[in-house]
Amino acid sequence: MMTTNEILRAAAQEKQILAAADTDTRNRALLAMADCLLEDAARILAANAEDVEAARGRISDVMIDRLLLNEARIAAMADGIREVAALPDPVGRILSRSVRPNGLIVEKTAVPFGVIAIIYESRPNVTSDAAALAVKSGNACVLRGGRDAFHSANAITTALRRGLARVGLPENLVSMVQDTDRASARELMTAVGLVDLLIPRGGAGLIRTCVENATVPCIETGTGICHVYIDAAAEVPMALDIIENAKTSRPSVCNAAEVCLVHSAVAAEFLPKMKKRLVEDRAAAGKTPVELRLDPRAAAIIPGTAAGADDFDTEFLDYVLAVRVVDSVEEATAHIAAHSTGHSEAIVTADDRVAAAFTARVNSAAVYVNASTRFTDGGEFGLGCEMGISTQKLHARGPMGLEELTTYQYIIRGCGQTR
Amino acid sequence: MMTTNEILRAAAQEKQILAAADTDTRNRALLAMADCLLEDAARILAANAEDVEAARGRISDVMIDRLLLNEARIAAMADGIREVAALPDPVGRILSRSVRPNGLIVEKTAVPFGVIAIIYESRPNVTSDAAALAVKSGNACVLRGGRDAFHSANAITTALRRGLARVGLPENLVSMVQDTDRASARELMTAVGLVDLLIPRGGAGLIRTCVENATVPCIETGTGICHVYIDAAAEVPMALDIIENAKTSRPSVCNAAEVCLVHSAVAAEFLPKMKKRLVEDRAAAGKTPVELRLDPRAAAIIPGTAAGADDFDTEFLDYVLAVRVVDSVEEATAHIAAHSTGHSEAIVTADDRVAAAFTARVNSAAVYVNASTRFTDGGEFGLGCEMGISTQKLHARGPMGLEELTTYQYIIRGCGQTR
Repeated sequence: MMTTNEILRAAAQEKQILAAADTDTRNRALLAMADCLLEDAARILAANAEDVEAARGRISDVMIDRLLLNEARIAAMADGIREVAALPDPVGRILSRSVRPNGLIVEKTAVPFGVIAIIYESRPNVTSDAAALAVKSGNACVLRGGRDAFHSANAITTALRRGLARVGLPENLVSMVQDTDRASARELMTAVGLVDLLIPRGGAGLIRTCVENATVPCIETGTGICHVYIDAAAEVPMALDIIENAKTSRPSVCNAAEVCLVHSAVAAEFLPKMKKRLVEDRAAAGKTPVELRLDPRAAAIIPGTAAGADDFDTEFLDYVLAVRVVDSVEEATAHIAAHSTGHSEAIVTADDRVAAAFTARVNSAAVYVNASTRFTDGGEFGLGCEMGISTQKLHARGPMGLEELTTYQYIIRGCGQTR
Repeated sequence: MMTTNEILRAAAQEKQILAAADTDTRNRALLAMADCLLEDAARILAANAEDVEAARGRISDVMIDRLLLNEARIAAMADGIREVAALPDPVGRILSRSVRPNGLIVEKTAVPFGVIAIIYESRPNVTSDAAALAVKSGNACVLRGGRDAFHSANAITTALRRGLARVGLPENLVSMVQDTDRASARELMTAVGLVDLLIPRGGAGLIRTCVENATVPCIETGTGICHVYIDAAAEVPMALDIIENAKTSRPSVCNAAEVCLVHSAVAAEFLPKMKKRLVEDRAAAGKTPVELRLDPRAAAIIPGTAAGADDFDTEFLDYVLAVRVVDSVEEATAHIAAHSTGHSEAIVTADDRVAAAFTARVNSAAVYVNASTRFTDGGEFGLGCEMGISTQKLHARGPMGLEELTTYQYIIRGCGQTR
């Protein structure tokens, strides 16, 4: 068994082989990885059964379901890898080219980072998704999964490594750290010179730990306290559709709305209708009603729980919505500036000038006019895939596709120029 | 006097005003800043005299000269600001646009970071250069200069702030931290939520301190252990011109070469000629000869100091060159991978296949074929200006111009779409 340091050194030593591999080689590797995943299905399912057995009683049924693999889910993972193979190659793109007066040809060229470390939690399919995106973008990857999916992730990694070997690439280009303790995560965060990029994918605690402790380049992903602002000029039926979708279509994900800001001019009409839609209609349909946490002005219009001190700074990831009444788009955007995590915010308005004020003042990664925050996603943006959603401003913002997994390099060709 | 925290809070609070200002307002602010710099020349020169007086005897004459201002240097600073005003606006560029099948219009738009903090050392003109680039790119800036230039930098900042006020912008968009102790630098490095980007400009010690301690997004700049590899297929006269230029044209800067790698097939011819050019010819012309630090194979061909353990890992910034003989381009690129800071490397060769192997294997920010490393510079690359040279892979690599001082944001326009 290799130690984490040995795994990192092997990846760093061999990363250049993948970086220099041509498009066809990387795509053939991906197809072989998909084949091997299917060939190894029985072994992967056996490993997964071991994980599920160990996890029962320790984690919730919802989490058990996320952990559970079957033939269909393995097939979906293989299909996911093949889809990545079919995407355009992000490596080697000429981002700009200029011929200088002295004859130097300066080309800005997309190149891989080198070694990408990915720290994630329980879903086994993240293993194959992340490895596929790394290989496609010419990067070696070192994966560090959660304890619950340890055997599953290892079996998947073994299959992926067989795929690399089948096309003559080193197996160490995709590796799985063999410890799931905190020390192994710390080791990845501080492996200066070995890890070229660290991407944590998981809950707010993991992200915070990485951002605070990483001395290697790190991209903060995922935490989303997303706001929907219902302007005075909003069409109320559209506003109801958008807040319902943003809050309830999948409350556990980062692009779900956590806060609704409502202009005072429309609050008396909108809030009772919103309460009917999110609370009563859902209860009547046998769905989980949304718990509304109201600021005093909203509470003067509709009944609900009084919002506590933290309710406007919490990523609920649940059927809970904090509600505040504001008097202007300026007050709304000031609230967002003070409380947002910079992920996604939406305005519902029929007034183009108010929409323009909102988009100019909100500096989150994604700003929506008359659409749900739920669209912040690599697939929905047309990127074809996604490694996570960046909530930082350096390098990548919002959904990170293949292009965001590359950096660039200047290559300058001359004929003896000196300065 | 405002504390560092008050300065940061003021910048963070008012950054949105500059981000929302149009191109014309930002350009008029720059021209007013240039005017005020000239109007305040007497005050700036008086402050500078105070700095020079205090520094005499404490710092070298070379450093005193870097610190010294006069009418011509102030005029050059004002001209520099006007040149920045004339550059294209980096803010608001549409980087990509797509209309999705559901009708959503997704625009990736260049936007300012917000507040950029810049920690630098003694040259007073960095104050006006950095402030001009920040204002042009829509960013508020908080400057923290070195002790030696404190009064000069403050007088310059006062002039620049008057320029902002003259066009109706808040003065706090350009501020100077009033402490030059370590605590003030630490405060900038850890001002999470207030500083959107930290750029250290200075020596290796400052850069390392920032990279190790910053919890805000930081761009590593400047340290350059640059290599020139003389291939077996090099034209020797071109190789001599390039190594002379890379080493001696300005040895104190980061894009100067520190290491020469020579293919064994050409070493017996090249090394004696290099020694003549860099040592004897320079001495005969009354110039400082280059001290050669030789690995054993080079030392078997020419006389010189034996290279010590650290000589291949040192940014000399002086008339010193470490020399090593290698047997192949692979050995050269392996040496570079092990010892480079990722800044700039060059190959001299007439063989296109060797050149391609070199550019594919070296992953530094700038890779040259048959040209001097000294060209790694915003002006030389056609960027029009430069905030520093990034040696990291995240966000920006190589010379950072105005575009690199922006991030992006997705703005999505719909008509009620839900997911």
